[in-house]
Amino acid sequence: MVKKLELLYEGKAKKVYMTDEENVLWIEYKDSATAFNGEKKATIAGKGRLNNEITSLLFSKLHSAGIDNHFIQKISETEQLVKKVTIIPLEVVVRNYVAGSLAKRLGIAEGTSLEKPLIEFYYKNDELGDPLLLEDHIAILKLATSEQIAVLKEYALKVNEILTQYFQNCHVRLIDFKLEFGFDAEGKIVLADEISPDTCRLWDMETNEKFDKDVFRRDLGNLADAYEVILQRLGG
Amino acid sequence: MVKKLELLYEGKAKKVYMTDEENVLWIEYKDSATAFNGEKKATIAGKGRLNNEITSLLFSKLHSAGIDNHFIQKISETEQLVKKVTIIPLEVVVRNYVAGSLAKRLGIAEGTSLEKPLIEFYYKNDELGDPLLLEDHIAILKLATSEQIAVLKEYALKVNEILTQYFQNCHVRLIDFKLEFGFDAEGKIVLADEISPDTCRLWDMETNEKFDKDVFRRDLGNLADAYEVILQRLGG
Ligand SMILES: Nc1ncnc2c1ncn2[C@@H]1O[C@H](COP(=O)(O)OP(=O)(O)O)[C@@H](O)[C@H]1O
Ligand SMILES: Nc1ncnc2c1ncn2[C@@H]1O[C@H](COP(=O)(O)OP(=O)(O)O)[C@@H](O)[C@H]1O
Ligand SMILES: [Mg+2]
Ligand SMILES: [Mg+2]
Repeated sequence: MVKKLELLYEGKAKKVYMTDEENVLWIEYKDSATAFNGEKKATIAGKGRLNNEITSLLFSKLHSAGIDNHFIQKISETEQLVKKVTIIPLEVVVRNYVAGSLAKRLGIAEGTSLEKPLIEFYYKNDELGDPLLLEDHIAILKLATSEQIAVLKEYALKVNEILTQYFQNCHVRLIDFKLEFGFDAEGKIVLADEISPDTCRLWDMETNEKFDKDVFRRDLGNLADAYEVILQRLGG
Repeated sequence: MVKKLELLYEGKAKKVYMTDEENVLWIEYKDSATAFNGEKKATIAGKGRLNNEITSLLFSKLHSAGIDNHFIQKISETEQLVKKVTIIPLEVVVRNYVAGSLAKRLGIAEGTSLEKPLIEFYYKNDELGDPLLLEDHIAILKLATSEQIAVLKEYALKVNEILTQYFQNCHVRLIDFKLEFGFDAEGKIVLADEISPDTCRLWDMETNEKFDKDVFRRDLGNLADAYEVILQRLGG
């Protein structure tokens, strides 16, 4: 069994530990919820377990659908082992419907469907407020080459196809989601971080009820209950 | 002589009048200065004259360099006649150096030179705060086709080459600028609006002294004096 070593970093949602295996990290999902770049905060019992379970399910699903990713295995209710990568500081957002910041930016009603999936890149930089980036901005910041950007987009669209179908089977509409990627020890681009109701917008297919972090952002009800619905529908 | 008819619209910097010629507008440059989406306001004597003179000079220069544009002729210190177009609600920004919102977005120091000119599109929409748009956003909003976007970029780069050289001859560094385009009566894309120290960042080639609207935005001195320097250097 892999041994947990020192804390590597603590983020808003997870603690990341080194292990006695060079390329393996130990991730612990926390019960904290944050929104608006850390301005709104709360502790929500059960959230760590729910996100760990849901992320584990989704990354396993993606593995079997042929998407290379960092997930190795779930090791407890709130913990998992992952492949260590060097995170590319880009939030790759895929949108099937207009919601959140896109609705505000374009002045289009939430829930409007998009003719084709939209991919956006945001700079993963809390200090700068995670700004939207053009591909030319990414080049100026030297965050990724245009070839790497093309790979990220291809991955993102594939993940979108797989997850849209998977959620649809569970009567859930995948509105949008955020992905993070990194370079593994061999320099290969690998899907990393998490995919959970913290990082997706998930609406009931019929009623459009929200089962994602907007429940917290907009005070729409009990967050853990909402995430539990997703876990149940995914069969977890 | 063309006759001025009713006011068509009044913007932050100009009044636009119909004329007795169907495709000709009468533009009057105002003495008002605004910044931060209208939050900061002032009346600055001479500003209307300076921007009318400078814009007239620059659009004439662009005409002779082969850039189709709306400018017909200057008819008084503060007035000019232009070809009427249907404005495309996009602010086409060209940057040679990092400054302003780009410095904030990327966390890069103002004055950093860019390896090649950067083109950005902003949604000309005061209510939404003129947000940055991806080309995919422009498509969703149906503001322009990808062919039209390509034309706008080509024009913008040509204008940049011509103006960079022209200002350089006057010992002025063209940091960045904003263009607006429209469709003329034949549906052709034509450069419109203004090019002035209101819409450009213009720094002294040696001292980096600012001769543009940042003097007003950042309270760096007398705005009309700064614009007068530009007019003088351009030989106006
Ligand atoms: N496989 C991985 N290797 C290295 N770092 C990772 C991996 N997966 C995720 N991370 C990083 O772990 C950190 C902690 O996650 P999180 O709490 O979500 O942080 P944040 O507050 O930055 O969103 C993030 O910076 C994330 O990018
Ligand atoms: N040739 C033209 N035909 C029609 N409208 C024009 C033309 N040139 C500029 N305009 C428009 O005139 C309006 C007034 O200018 P301005 O005072 O700068 O307005 P704003 O406050 O929108 O920046 C703007 O909406 C601008 O797009
Ligand atoms: Mg995170
Ligand atoms: Mg204007």
